[in-house]
Amino acid sequence: MADKRAVLLVIDGMADRPLIDHDYKTPMEYANTPNMDRLAKGGLVGLLDPIAPGVRPGSDVANMALLGYDPSKYYTGRGALEAIGAGIELRTTDVAFRCNFATVDNDFRVEDRRAGRIRKASKLAKAVDEIKIGGVPGVKTIFKATVEHRGVLVLRGEKLSRMVSDVDPKEEGLKIGIAKAIDSSEEAKRTAAAVNEFVKRSHEVLREHPLNQERANNGEKVANIVLTRGGGTVPTLPSFKSMFDLRGACISGTAMIKGLATVAGIEVIDVKGASGSLKTDYEAKAKATIESSKDKNFILLHVKAPDIAGHDGDFKAKVRTLEEADTLVGHIIEEVDIGMNYFDLTSDHATPVAYGTHTGDPVPVVIGGPDVPASRILKLSESTAARGNLGRIRGVNLMPIITDLVGRSRLYGS
Amino acid sequence: MADKRAVLLVIDGMADRPLIDHDYKTPMEYANTPNMDRLAKGGLVGLLDPIAPGVRPGSDVANMALLGYDPSKYYTGRGALEAIGAGIELRTTDVAFRCNFATVDNDFRVEDRRAGRIRKASKLAKAVDEIKIGGVPGVKTIFKATVEHRGVLVLRGEKLSRMVSDVDPKEEGLKIGIAKAIDSSEEAKRTAAAVNEFVKRSHEVLREHPLNQERANNGEKVANIVLTRGGGTVPTLPSFKSMFDLRGACISGTAMIKGLATVAGIEVIDVKGASGSLKTDYEAKAKATIESSKDKNFILLHVKAPDIAGHDGDFKAKVRTLEEADTLVGHIIEEVDIGMNYFDLTSDHATPVAYGTHTGDPVPVVIGGPDVPASRILKLSESTAARGNLGRIRGVNLMPIITDLVGRSRLYGS
Repeated sequence: MADKRAVLLVIDGMADRPLIDHDYKTPMEYANTPNMDRLAKGGLVGLLDPIAPGVRPGSDVANMALLGYDPSKYYTGRGALEAIGAGIELRTTDVAFRCNFATVDNDFRVEDRRAGRIRKASKLAKAVDEIKIGGVPGVKTIFKATVEHRGVLVLRGEKLSRMVSDVDPKEEGLKIGIAKAIDSSEEAKRTAAAVNEFVKRSHEVLREHPLNQERANNGEKVANIVLTRGGGTVPTLPSFKSMFDLRGACISGTAMIKGLATVAGIEVIDVKGASGSLKTDYEAKAKATIESSKDKNFILLHVKAPDIAGHDGDFKAKVRTLEEADTLVGHIIEEVDIGMNYFDLTSDHATPVAYGTHTGDPVPVVIGGPDVPASRILKLSESTAARGNLGRIRGVNLMPIITDLVGRSRLYGS
Repeated sequence: MADKRAVLLVIDGMADRPLIDHDYKTPMEYANTPNMDRLAKGGLVGLLDPIAPGVRPGSDVANMALLGYDPSKYYTGRGALEAIGAGIELRTTDVAFRCNFATVDNDFRVEDRRAGRIRKASKLAKAVDEIKIGGVPGVKTIFKATVEHRGVLVLRGEKLSRMVSDVDPKEEGLKIGIAKAIDSSEEAKRTAAAVNEFVKRSHEVLREHPLNQERANNGEKVANIVLTRGGGTVPTLPSFKSMFDLRGACISGTAMIKGLATVAGIEVIDVKGASGSLKTDYEAKAKATIESSKDKNFILLHVKAPDIAGHDGDFKAKVRTLEEADTLVGHIIEEVDIGMNYFDLTSDHATPVAYGTHTGDPVPVVIGGPDVPASRILKLSESTAARGNLGRIRGVNLMPIITDLVGRSRLYGS
C-alpha cells in the first residue's frame, strides 16, 4: 500500500451562530463554498468540541487538542508558542508573553488595543528590543514584532515564572493592568516586577519615537505602549512523530501555530503570502501544501482570516473569507488525489460575528478521502454537521481518527 | 448586553422505553406536550447520558452531574443532601441517612416499604426523634420526616463513617437488613452499631404509637419501623457561583435536590404547593420561577411526579404527569422571554414504567433560546432527540454549555 497522506485544514473561528438579521443563517450557511460542500458530501461529517462541550477555548489550547495533545496535560501558556513561532530560540527557563502595540492616553487608559492595527511595527520593535531593565537582577528582555500590531516579549534569566497576570485589560476604555503574581512564589513576584518595568519603559521609548510623531501627524493612532498577556513557558510535548507515526509539516502565518508545530517537531514551512491576516495568499498556501506533501504525510494548514472577521463583527468579511478559504480547499482537492489521500477540515473554535469573541460552540468537522462513508450532506454548515455521519467528537479525537485512516495507527491491546 | 438568564427544568424520570402494549410508544410519545415540542423545534435537541452511557444513576449523582459537579469527584452519599434539604443544619462530622417509614411483620419481613404511602408522618417522626440510643457512647440521633413516608436520620458524634450498608432491603417480602461496616474502619463499625440500635428502637416506639393503632383500626398499613439507606456526609462542593459565575435559585419539593442546591450555594426558594409528590402545583412553581428570575440568572426547577409514576409502573399517570409538566413549560415560556433568555429541559434519568426503577438510558435534552440553531423537530421524544442537532452529551457537559450561551463562560487558554 502506498504511503497515504492527510491534510488538516484548520479554518480559525469558522463556526458561528444563526443571525436574526441574516435570515437566521450563519456565515457558513450564507457563503458559497462548493468545494467544502463537495468534500462534506462524500466524506465523514460531524461536530467537534475543541476541548469539551461548552468550553470556550483560546486558539492555543484548541490547536493543541486538534494536534492530539491534551491541553490539560501539556498546556503551559501561550507566550512561549508565540515566541518560538516568531523565530526566537527559547530556553526552558525563559518566560514569554504575547504583546500588542497599543494606544494609551496620559492616564494609561487604553484608546486602541491595536494601535490602529499598525502594519509596520518592526522599527518600533527594534527600539523596544533595546530596552534594558534594571530593577530585577539577572533578567533581560528580548522583544520581537510578529504580525500587524502583535509581538512577543521574552524574559530571560533565572527564577522566572509564567504565573503572572496580564497587563492588557483586553477592553478599550479601561486602564492598563499591573502584572501581579498569580501564585505566592518568589519567581512570580520577580517576573511581575520585570514585566511592569518593561511596560513602563516601552511607553517611555515609544512615545518619543519619530515613527509615532509621523503617525500622529498623519492622524493615525500612535503605538505608544506594549501590553503583555498570556505568559508561558515551553511545553514538553512528546514528538508528533512518536505519537502518530507521521512526518508532519505546518503551513501557517500565525506565530502561535508555528510555535506549537515547532515544539511538536512538525516542520514549519514558510510561505510567502501566508500572512496570518485578512489578505493572505490562498493560492500560495495551496501550492506550498501540495509541494510539501511530497515528502511529508501530514500537513497542518491554518487559515486565520475568518477568525479576524469574527472578532471584527464583520458578517460580510466572514462570508468572504470563508469563500476564499473554499477556493483554497478547491486548489488542494484538485492537486492532492483524495481518492488516495485524506483531506480533513475543521476549526479551532467558533468566533460568532454577533459576539466578536470565541464561544464554546462545537465546530463542523469533515474527513474526506478513500474508504469513508459518504454523508450525502449537500451544504456544509453548523446545522448540517450536527446531523452528519460522524456524530460529536472532541478535539483530541481527531488525530487518532486521521492516523487510523492513513493506516498508521498502532494496535491497542493484542 | 443585558444579563441573560437560564432556567433548567429537570423532569425527574421523564425518559422511558417503548411499550409493546402501547403501540411501541413511550409515555413521552403518547403525551400531548405542545410546549415542550415548540421549545424543541426552535432549539438544540439531543440525548444526555446523566453519568455515562449505560450507567444507571440515582437521582443524587444525576442531579449533581446536571449541576456541573462530577460525582466521581464530589459524591459522598445521599443522606446528607436529604438532611440538609429537610432543613437540618449538618456538621461535617455528621452522618445522615435517607429513611422510609415501613410496615414489617413480626419476623421483620417488609410488607410495605412505604407504609401505605403514609401522608401524616410528623407525629410519628416526633416520637422517633425522641429516641435515645445508649449502645454507642457519644452518638446521638436526630430524626425528621420529609415528604409522605420519607424522612432523614442524622447520627451526630465523633468517629462516624458513611461506609455502612442499608437496612432497607428495597424489596417487599424480604427481611430487613442489618447495617454492616463496608470498610474495616472502627468508625464504620461504630456507625453500623448505632444504626442497628436506632432501627430496633424505632420499631419499639412505633408499634405502640396511638396513630398506628388508629391506622390499623382503619385498615391502613401501620408505619411500624424506620428503615435506613444511603448514608452520607456533607460533600465539599466549590460554589456554583465560583464554577459558573451564575446567581442560582432552586425550586423543588424534593429534600435531596434542596440539600444539593444548599451545599452548592444555590438559594432554595420554598414554594407553597411544590410538594415533591404527584399533586404538585405547577402554576405556583411557574410563578415562583418567574418571580425568582428577577434577581437570579439561573433557576433550577425540579418536577418529581413523572418519576413517581414510573416507579409505580403507571403508564397513564406518567403520561398525565408529563402533560402537567408541559403546562409548566408553557407558563414559563410565556413569562420568560426566550428570545432573550434560555430555557433548558432535561431529566436526571429514565424511570420506565415497565421496569419501575431507574435505568441507564440516555434522556432527551432541549436547549431553547436566542442564537441557537433550530432542530426543526416536531415532537419531542426519546427517539426524535436521538436524531437531534445537539448530538449526545453527558450530564456534566450541560452547565458549561448553558454558561457559555448566557455569555458567562471563562476562556480556557488564551
